[in-house]
Amino acid sequence: MQWVKVLGGLVGASALLGLGIILGHFAIPKGADAPAPGVSVSQDLDLEILESVMKQLDASKIRENLRELSREPHLASSPRDEALAQLLLQRWRDPESGLDAAEAPTYEVLLSFPSREQPNRVAVVGPTGTVLFSCRQSEQNLTGEQGGPDVVPPYAAYAPPGTPQGLLVYANRGTEEDFMELQTQGIRLEGTIALTRYGGTGRGAKAVNAAKHGVAGVLVYTDPADINDGHSSASQTFPNSWRLPPSGVERGSYYEYFGDPLTPYLPANPSSFRLNPDTVPGFPPIPTQPIGFEDAKILLCQVNVSVHNRLELRNSSNVLGIIRGAVEPDRYVLYGNHRDSWVHGAVDPSSGTAVLLELSRVLGTLLKKGTWRPRRSIVFASWGAEEFGLIGSTEFTEEFFSKLQERTVAYINVDISVFANATLRAQGTPPVQSVIFSAAKQIPAPGLDGLSIYDNWIRYFNRSSTAYGLVPSLGSLGAGSDYAPFIHFLGISSMDIAYTYDRSKTSARIYPTYHTAFDTFGYVDKFVDPGFSSHQAVARTAGSVLLRLSDSLFLPLNVSDYGETLRNFLQAAQRDLGVLLEQHSISLGPLVTAVEKFEGAAAALGQRVSALQKDTPDPLQVRMLNDQLMLLERTFLNPRAFPEERYYSHVLWAPRTGSVATFPGLANACSRAMNTSLGSAAWAEVQRQLSILVVALEGAAATLRPVADL
Amino acid sequence: MQWVKVLGGLVGASALLGLGIILGHFAIPKGADAPAPGVSVSQDLDLEILESVMKQLDASKIRENLRELSREPHLASSPRDEALAQLLLQRWRDPESGLDAAEAPTYEVLLSFPSREQPNRVAVVGPTGTVLFSCRQSEQNLTGEQGGPDVVPPYAAYAPPGTPQGLLVYANRGTEEDFMELQTQGIRLEGTIALTRYGGTGRGAKAVNAAKHGVAGVLVYTDPADINDGHSSASQTFPNSWRLPPSGVERGSYYEYFGDPLTPYLPANPSSFRLNPDTVPGFPPIPTQPIGFEDAKILLCQVNVSVHNRLELRNSSNVLGIIRGAVEPDRYVLYGNHRDSWVHGAVDPSSGTAVLLELSRVLGTLLKKGTWRPRRSIVFASWGAEEFGLIGSTEFTEEFFSKLQERTVAYINVDISVFANATLRAQGTPPVQSVIFSAAKQIPAPGLDGLSIYDNWIRYFNRSSTAYGLVPSLGSLGAGSDYAPFIHFLGISSMDIAYTYDRSKTSARIYPTYHTAFDTFGYVDKFVDPGFSSHQAVARTAGSVLLRLSDSLFLPLNVSDYGETLRNFLQAAQRDLGVLLEQHSISLGPLVTAVEKFEGAAAALGQRVSALQKDTPDPLQVRMLNDQLMLLERTFLNPRAFPEERYYSHVLWAPRTGSVATFPGLANACSRAMNTSLGSAAWAEVQRQLSILVVALEGAAATLRPVADL
Repeated sequence: MQWVKVLGGLVGASALLGLGIILGHFAIPKGADAPAPGVSVSQDLDLEILESVMKQLDASKIRENLRELSREPHLASSPRDEALAQLLLQRWRDPESGLDAAEAPTYEVLLSFPSREQPNRVAVVGPTGTVLFSCRQSEQNLTGEQGGPDVVPPYAAYAPPGTPQGLLVYANRGTEEDFMELQTQGIRLEGTIALTRYGGTGRGAKAVNAAKHGVAGVLVYTDPADINDGHSSASQTFPNSWRLPPSGVERGSYYEYFGDPLTPYLPANPSSFRLNPDTVPGFPPIPTQPIGFEDAKILLCQVNVSVHNRLELRNSSNVLGIIRGAVEPDRYVLYGNHRDSWVHGAVDPSSGTAVLLELSRVLGTLLKKGTWRPRRSIVFASWGAEEFGLIGSTEFTEEFFSKLQERTVAYINVDISVFANATLRAQGTPPVQSVIFSAAKQIPAPGLDGLSIYDNWIRYFNRSSTAYGLVPSLGSLGAGSDYAPFIHFLGISSMDIAYTYDRSKTSARIYPTYHTAFDTFGYVDKFVDPGFSSHQAVARTAGSVLLRLSDSLFLPLNVSDYGETLRNFLQAAQRDLGVLLEQHSISLGPLVTAVEKFEGAAAALGQRVSALQKDTPDPLQVRMLNDQLMLLERTFLNPRAFPEERYYSHVLWAPRTGSVATFPGLANACSRAMNTSLGSAAWAEVQRQLSILVVALEGAAATLRPVADL
Repeated sequence: MQWVKVLGGLVGASALLGLGIILGHFAIPKGADAPAPGVSVSQDLDLEILESVMKQLDASKIRENLRELSREPHLASSPRDEALAQLLLQRWRDPESGLDAAEAPTYEVLLSFPSREQPNRVAVVGPTGTVLFSCRQSEQNLTGEQGGPDVVPPYAAYAPPGTPQGLLVYANRGTEEDFMELQTQGIRLEGTIALTRYGGTGRGAKAVNAAKHGVAGVLVYTDPADINDGHSSASQTFPNSWRLPPSGVERGSYYEYFGDPLTPYLPANPSSFRLNPDTVPGFPPIPTQPIGFEDAKILLCQVNVSVHNRLELRNSSNVLGIIRGAVEPDRYVLYGNHRDSWVHGAVDPSSGTAVLLELSRVLGTLLKKGTWRPRRSIVFASWGAEEFGLIGSTEFTEEFFSKLQERTVAYINVDISVFANATLRAQGTPPVQSVIFSAAKQIPAPGLDGLSIYDNWIRYFNRSSTAYGLVPSLGSLGAGSDYAPFIHFLGISSMDIAYTYDRSKTSARIYPTYHTAFDTFGYVDKFVDPGFSSHQAVARTAGSVLLRLSDSLFLPLNVSDYGETLRNFLQAAQRDLGVLLEQHSISLGPLVTAVEKFEGAAAALGQRVSALQKDTPDPLQVRMLNDQLMLLERTFLNPRAFPEERYYSHVLWAPRTGSVATFPGLANACSRAMNTSLGSAAWAEVQRQLSILVVALEGAAATLRPVADL
């Protein structure tokens, strides 16, 4: 999983050498659309099956999965990444525990790698060019796993090659404010090398900000204060604790957008049109290199940075497997995670893939025994090249845009399944809140006798809901993992599920060995989740959510819960922007009306669902209601709302730069209008964004009303 | 109906003073989504009902409708236009022959009218400014219907006010080529008044082209050669024949786009964001005025044109009525026509509205008697302000974008129902061909003993189909009437149905009194369709198509017929662009593969439909297949394909400027690449358009494959 990002584009992904089979061609016998004979069109969630699945999800099997998955580094498109694609295929084609069908199609995507022949180098040089000190070019081999030829040296993917040399300037987190502050202090930035620390802004954004001030090169290190709760000595760090060793370096993608950089909005098939790599937007403008804190603290004076990264077109595989629905095979519940890692990737992403494989094993076994077949189709996905920018998942959504948009019930993402073992943490759009709550209430929290996952969760993350009182708080979805194209580009209700930290015990920005060569099986087994009970808890939670979505007669998507979000956004707008808008004669009245209409329509729909559930509804009545529930999220898409924000079309969850926690189009337009001298044009854009929003909410309400209302 | 346009934006529409009730709020009892008790989920088309509807459609009732509808001028948003909205509402709320519900919501839209106080004037002036001759300011009152205060004087809607004066230059049709030719001949155009004739290019385009050459004003007249087969004397024209009298003047909208000019992509609700009218794109750049041929032949020397048109915000009503579906109320078959006319509008649009009212009467009567209720919902629409630019229908699609796109089976447009009484003429996208054929085969052609409408049709318009041999040829849909937003913006399979000319008998560009004050009831009754049997034939054809779409268990949309279009477009590309593309190393191979995949998937789907029809399929199986058929057209939409072409998102039917009859994006990009010096950037755009197309076709094929294929 990616380090949390709310705006901007620092995302990562990786790719597999692929098989080249074009997606969409699973061998399927003719007439396979038909429900199996004897299937009831009223088939509903079977609680015994659910219980049985929960029991069968096995922590020791997840541990074995993880051991195998993280045994070797499996950088996107590497031979080991491809071997893991084959392992997944083999599991999903297993006659005893496999799925109905599985394939591993590939895309040809642009990745970035350091040169083997000319390693990237960071050195302190004297006035005559003598090298006074060189940074490490790889991490220290502490467990015997950091030394092999497949451990990619630390680098900033997509940073351009170059060998800038200049005075070193410490630029904190490399935000625009940080560079402004340096200028205010009279520090000349032109031609310097900026030393920045991870956090505060996107990876690529540091170089973008630096270049604006004439900086020639950027170094990025992980500060012990940010990652290790201040600890930095060898004895206090891995392999003696879960903390990052002094030589550890966070790798990552420095590309601003996501998807294959050469084929925006097009699948990266061999025949697809490709941009010229020399003119592609979104790459860092200047050479950039990540380093460890051990080196960072030594750097002084004149620094020479040599970056020799190369762009390469590579084949990257997704692996897809399907369990065909018995009753509504044309409704898809998608469950995915990426497969590629920066090095061994035991936590990121193999902890998620280990869970995915255990879940598919248990369901596949029920399927092959003939005990069970879901009402709707379940699609499992192992995405390639996520670390380079969510590439595999994005290309998939570009290729099957219409089909996925028409038929997908929800997308479940489990990337890093266990950051730490304190509590569940979930992100998602409002319609999935209720189904995650239902699942979490029925599963015991590991190690806490009698407490459910829900009861434990609410102790760590909670909020006061007007509808329900105190509930666990669901985070919102940025673009940190493969859910991004599903929610932002396709408008599919999405979620991300994991176990995570007790924040009273650590303030680490993310688990310390993130994107380093120390993220290994031993690290997980010893420090992150000994016994794998948190992995099992995530498997059960995600598995229960999956089954509820695939098997329930009525889709467990509570669209009314969107009302609360809209109301909160509206109140923030009224409170923090109301006076300002009034000064410019812009009324929030139509927005108030639209929110009220939405709430009314959603509540009435909820009542119709309840009434029908007490009845014996005919299958078409159920289908019609479910279509309303499934398609609600789509009504918030407007591909013309933010044309400059690539892929972002969701008017409620697009990136927000303004400080007010409200509708992003409105917040951003207000923020621009206040900070520019554009005057009336900028305020007209505020009006336009408000209208776009009102039309989307009114349109959403219209889809929730009785279907024979016009 | 609009005069045929293939590209550009001259479209017209009109508006009604409205009731202000916001669309989407029909009173409907709770639980109305539920099928009526006793309804069978397998309900299919009842051939006896169909036969009974065909018999009850009454020519004399259509004639009475037309008499009432065209009794007075009913320019968009005029009191009479609003009164007609009330008439429609009353009919649709009639307890004996009405629909389930009807409403008349309004939009506030920007229209353009001539000034009453300062009539537009065209005069010949001497060197000292003396007026030597003035053109008529209104048509001659030949039937007593051309003189009233509600007859809007001839004008060019949306032309800007101004009083240019200059030498008159005859500029033929006012195309770019025409003005180039004048320049080549050494004629100075700067400051002149261009006299142009209707036809050859869009109305507004004449002024756009003229202004580029420094022309100060434009006159547009209707040439007798184009409209009257050369006849021009009073004795040879109306009221002595159907031909246009010398004083007749074609009115029309000169706005380049469609929809309300101030609210592109937003419904024109009172609160919606509006552009500044002074900076709105798409209006003619210079004063423009239409005149009659009687005046056109007199004009000489120095001409003074005084245009005093004013832009006004007006309320315009749509009227909507619904018959709720018994089994699938969330599937809509839309049937519409505009209501507003330029003057009395007996042909345009009342001939269509008269048919609409007769059809709704017959179906409403069956409904109220309890004899029948359609399987799916039927929605009738009377659009406002079409003559000003398809405004009512466009605003409706903007307001209910998601709901309509998710649920609409097809849109049937019957604007001018009878241009002349020789033969049926239909335009539409390929999936509707088969249902129109089925209807036309079972209805007798008026006045041709024993011949079906189909048999007569094939004599006038035909083509050789690879699949079927000789068949009537279906025209393609431009933007000439209200189908435009449905097909181009929403991707809904659409059609337009009418009776039309015997081209061996007239070469008139369109029926001669089009958009003049002579388009009256008497004109229709005496010259266009005495006896109204052609009106009845259109009512039957459109009614049969409507019932087949609303009532058939399996949707009668033959998606395989798209294969033939794709194949023809492909062959044209190979034949006429293949060498050129090869010279620039662009391969059509991926396009060939995509077309083949589409054909294969469509054929296989056809077989699955046939197999299921022989079976006793369960209702969900039928629904799933029908969703595939219904949603195919949507898969050809890409809102990012042609960002500069407002509303046009359909990659197969967007406007084509290139001369090769192939995929528009490809044709246009090739044409630009050949004609510019942009070099590789222009050829990259050809590649990009080709990829967009390939992805759309592959995506379409993916939606046609068995739904549990990935």
